[in-house]
Amino acid sequence: MTNYVYIATSLDGFIATKDGGIDWLTGIPNRENSDYGFAEFMRGIDAIVMGRNTFQTVMSFNSWPYQKPVFVLSNTLKTLPGVIACKAEIIEGNPREVVKLLRDRGFNNLYIDGGRTIQGFLAEDLIDEMIITRVPVLLGDGIPLFGKLSKLIKFSHIRTEIIGQGMVKNHYRRLRD
Amino acid sequence: MTNYVYIATSLDGFIATKDGGIDWLTGIPNRENSDYGFAEFMRGIDAIVMGRNTFQTVMSFNSWPYQKPVFVLSNTLKTLPGVIACKAEIIEGNPREVVKLLRDRGFNNLYIDGGRTIQGFLAEDLIDEMIITRVPVLLGDGIPLFGKLSKLIKFSHIRTEIIGQGMVKNHYRRLRD
Repeated sequence: MTNYVYIATSLDGFIATKDGGIDWLTGIPNRENSDYGFAEFMRGIDAIVMGRNTFQTVMSFNSWPYQKPVFVLSNTLKTLPGVIACKAEIIEGNPREVVKLLRDRGFNNLYIDGGRTIQGFLAEDLIDEMIITRVPVLLGDGIPLFGKLSKLIKFSHIRTEIIGQGMVKNHYRRLRD
Repeated sequence: MTNYVYIATSLDGFIATKDGGIDWLTGIPNRENSDYGFAEFMRGIDAIVMGRNTFQTVMSFNSWPYQKPVFVLSNTLKTLPGVIACKAEIIEGNPREVVKLLRDRGFNNLYIDGGRTIQGFLAEDLIDEMIITRVPVLLGDGIPLFGKLSKLIKFSHIRTEIIGQGMVKNHYRRLRD
């Protein structure tokens, strides 16, 4: 039962520009057309939890990128576009409630995605592992990966891999006392 | 003629807690009493430029840690404590003026230190290399390493080293088009 973060950020900790742009990330040459380990990561995942903003970004992609059930965390959205309704579902509640709800339905390993969603889960100390890929660029402004916390959270370092054009992929595990 | 950043940050990009605390960094067990490559880095440096806050932090250390000339960037400080006056000097001006002033005096390779000072130099695109060590901890708040930029700044990745207790030390070089 593990909650994962798997995300790319700029050196200054942004996951997108202010207007949600990720050209600085998707524009990186990828000659071998590598998924940089994403499929392998996804094999260990039972379901994806994302915020509404991330859902809208994903909806703008050419094709739906997930094989696993997606839960869109929103207290305002009521329905999803018909074409996606068999792949994604709206879920309501705070991070603790969401985890309980999904575990009760048999989804044990959750991929938590999107800035605000990740921040909400971290604020409740509900993230167990983080795989963070640092792109060697300073954006200078944008949507931050991390937010305020009421206390320090320690992690242990599992491994580091250099992928693509100088991206550094770090795997961390929550270190609980 | 290279301007360097050499600094440790939390995963969420803070170089100190709000009150300047660095216990989360200095408290990491260091059984081999390693300097993690700092002396080697310093051999290539001609002078250190730091802001007043960083200077005050350094002044609180048990001993003066630098063998190279230190320039304290301040437009308000007029004198330095007598005991340190032979090791440090006040310097005034904006980043571009400071670089010119120090290069004219024969200091070519500069170690730029302190959050606001680094931010000021980055905003003027005056940083050539960054050696950033990520400590596997989220502070949740504090003094940020990076600040706003008017445009994206690209770096190339030189190398990555794992040091100490899962700290990841990344060396980046400014990638100019």
